[in-house]
Amino acid sequence: MIIIGEKINSTLKSIRPAMESRDKSAIQDLALRQIKAGASFIDVNAGMFHENESEILQWLIETIQEVTDVPFAIDSPSAMAILTGLKANKNGKPIINSITAEKARYDAIIPLIKQFNAKVIALCMDDSGMPETVEDRVAIARTLINNLTGEGVSMDDIFIDPMVRPIGTGSHYGTVAIETIRQVKNEFPEVHIACGLSNVSFGLPARKILNQSFLVAAMAAGMDGAIVDPLDKKLMSFVYATEALLGKDDYCMEFLTKFREGEIEV
Amino acid sequence: MIIIGEKINSTLKSIRPAMESRDKSAIQDLALRQIKAGASFIDVNAGMFHENESEILQWLIETIQEVTDVPFAIDSPSAMAILTGLKANKNGKPIINSITAEKARYDAIIPLIKQFNAKVIALCMDDSGMPETVEDRVAIARTLINNLTGEGVSMDDIFIDPMVRPIGTGSHYGTVAIETIRQVKNEFPEVHIACGLSNVSFGLPARKILNQSFLVAAMAAGMDGAIVDPLDKKLMSFVYATEALLGKDDYCMEFLTKFREGEIEV
Repeated sequence: MIIIGEKINSTLKSIRPAMESRDKSAIQDLALRQIKAGASFIDVNAGMFHENESEILQWLIETIQEVTDVPFAIDSPSAMAILTGLKANKNGKPIINSITAEKARYDAIIPLIKQFNAKVIALCMDDSGMPETVEDRVAIARTLINNLTGEGVSMDDIFIDPMVRPIGTGSHYGTVAIETIRQVKNEFPEVHIACGLSNVSFGLPARKILNQSFLVAAMAAGMDGAIVDPLDKKLMSFVYATEALLGKDDYCMEFLTKFREGEIEV
Repeated sequence: MIIIGEKINSTLKSIRPAMESRDKSAIQDLALRQIKAGASFIDVNAGMFHENESEILQWLIETIQEVTDVPFAIDSPSAMAILTGLKANKNGKPIINSITAEKARYDAIIPLIKQFNAKVIALCMDDSGMPETVEDRVAIARTLINNLTGEGVSMDDIFIDPMVRPIGTGSHYGTVAIETIRQVKNEFPEVHIACGLSNVSFGLPARKILNQSFLVAAMAAGMDGAIVDPLDKKLMSFVYATEALLGKDDYCMEFLTKFREGEIEV
């Protein structure tokens, strides 16, 4: 599993003050703890700072790459902010988070992917919004993948996000997301799938168990990436357990190692 | 989900003494607690008592049906013991646990299914043993289903058990079980799937998280029954969470009700 650590995000109230006060050590510590817990990419998002998003995003990237060379997921709705982030980046090949099939957004992000040879998270939505059916989501994924590879982006650099909607607003949304994952992965085995997980349980109680359950079902359907909190030990325990279960952990060696290291929370 | 409560089983050291001493109230209490926790069938197994299995099985059934009319899963490798159990049964339509495609076992159990109009758990194994591949398991399941329906057993009365083997002895066994479930359920949507879960984690540490993970992945593949401990509140929480996730719980009403009743353990 490709874990994209989601904690350095301005929408999280716990971390926003450290961004406002430019608290380098708090940001660096949070990056390093996520990496130690298994993150392969560090998501950085300063989108809540409407007036100086670009400046703070640049500061986050410069601050974090002082202490690690783990690559970033540069997370913004603004192509301008993403460009600033890409210019600041000195770590490995980053992920642009995100592109969609909306025309304006697609046209703004494509040049950045090409200029900086970046990976990209592609959301299953277009100018008509988030489609209701599996068929329509897969069709958008297919369009995005065909267009991106047509621009020279390799399959391995594309992460499809099926756009998980809350099951509390529609009982079918869990299955829609899971079946979209399965069909996209069947049709494009080299493409990665990376979901945000927690949206599935929005508005419901006992969210953790719903998120854990969705993680397992999505992994069983072919999800090989996730934007999650790697400091959530129980959730990461399910990542290791499910990899063992799905035959992606030879002889259960990683699961056994994590258990011996005290990283499996039962 | 069709929950078959597994606790009244002579292989469990905690309950065997109550069988030896014919402790009616202990057995009745355990049956009632499983039913309260969601069991639709009560498995009864006296197989460890080689010399008087039939007598103890009969006593278990008579004892439990004094306090409930929830039906039994009559669990034995011996057709003789199963016959004794079927004769003693006064509750609803029971499940015979189990038949296989082994010729001797198949021939011994078929007349009992027909005479007593019973449901049956059918294990994916034949005289050559437990097959290694998904294809071979599905082939055995298909043979069992075709033969059973040919004998007049309805699809709805058949529970296929894919025979889960420990992932600690072969990294592929989790996927073999999950794909067998998916293919059998696709080909025979009216047939039920009922797994024993815990074998998947045999020999590994942190078994609970592996079992929970397997439960979710198997349900996502189409498993609609399980032979489990319904008193395991965490496992049952995953049953309710996964039903909500898979769109089998309209408006998440059951999940919300269980949460309000304090039955969801996060």
